[in-house]
Amino acid sequence: MEMLEERIRRDGIVRSGNVLKVDSFINHQMDIALFEEMAKEWKRLFSGKPINKILTIEASGIGIAAIVAKEFNVPVVFAKKSMSVNLDGNNYTTHIKSFTHNKIYDVIVSKKYLGPDDHVLIIDDFLANGCALVGLLELIEAAGAHTEGIGIAIEKGYQLGGQIIRGRGIQLESLAIVESMNDQTGEIVFRHNN
Amino acid sequence: MEMLEERIRRDGIVRSGNVLKVDSFINHQMDIALFEEMAKEWKRLFSGKPINKILTIEASGIGIAAIVAKEFNVPVVFAKKSMSVNLDGNNYTTHIKSFTHNKIYDVIVSKKYLGPDDHVLIIDDFLANGCALVGLLELIEAAGAHTEGIGIAIEKGYQLGGQIIRGRGIQLESLAIVESMNDQTGEIVFRHNN
Repeated sequence: MEMLEERIRRDGIVRSGNVLKVDSFINHQMDIALFEEMAKEWKRLFSGKPINKILTIEASGIGIAAIVAKEFNVPVVFAKKSMSVNLDGNNYTTHIKSFTHNKIYDVIVSKKYLGPDDHVLIIDDFLANGCALVGLLELIEAAGAHTEGIGIAIEKGYQLGGQIIRGRGIQLESLAIVESMNDQTGEIVFRHNN
Repeated sequence: MEMLEERIRRDGIVRSGNVLKVDSFINHQMDIALFEEMAKEWKRLFSGKPINKILTIEASGIGIAAIVAKEFNVPVVFAKKSMSVNLDGNNYTTHIKSFTHNKIYDVIVSKKYLGPDDHVLIIDDFLANGCALVGLLELIEAAGAHTEGIGIAIEKGYQLGGQIIRGRGIQLESLAIVESMNDQTGEIVFRHNN
């Protein structure tokens, strides 16, 4: 998606250790007008699919997911990291390793909000190694729900997550795929399939 | 706000220990159509204020804040709990005690996204003892930004937070104020000022 790539080129910051900072417009400050354009693009890319729920994971996926849900006119469910005393024991649970925070999280969704009638579009800000997505797919499978597709803002194309997900036959639409980036020059190269 | 009160009466669940569960429509599954109506109501209540930024705190405030930001046509910043390796050391920081999780969090906002030019509307899902709000107000003050008001979905009117905030002369608009609730009968009584 041209608009997102341009924005990443302009405002994204490449740091050593494979870090692409987009916190001025995606995951700390959020540019809602940009999210609306992204939502429209996913609506186009997933047209014809019987999507009736958006699934994401706290925290940085929630803002994008809310705007996407508005475009699709369906509710959002966000998976929660670690057990909250406000939740029943009645949850689907998995574990996700976060490389960013170097931790393993319990990730849960209440059985009340994910079930066999749900046709789910997963939305998240980043895809790198795919650990978070694989965890969410496990929750959907445990619930007997259907994965209609996955929408990602920024995929790190040189990591394995995209390959793993596409290898499972799931429609994965990443609006920007970073082929390579250079923390010395700040240069970011995007992958285009066409 | 009639619509929100009705929804809380219908789908909210009162549990012992002062717990009001609204996770079917606010803070686990999110009803975006409801959030849009809430956003319109806050737009009306804060009309004439020069709001140019929405501030919230992860995680359950983010979805509401994103929809409100769309209504106001301004960006959102969400304060982050605990230090992430992806953030600079260049942050405003405070500490917030969470009674729900019985923990003290570091809460941070990057100095890049909050400053003297910002006229801030704080948005969050719940107000009880006010700890989270007081923390956010400290961050705004540290940044030299201006607090234009606070929009809360559900205030627990029998706890002290609302009184503390209103006592500071801040325009606080809670769309539903719970006067009392009974975990035996499930009854919820709302406060109305008129």
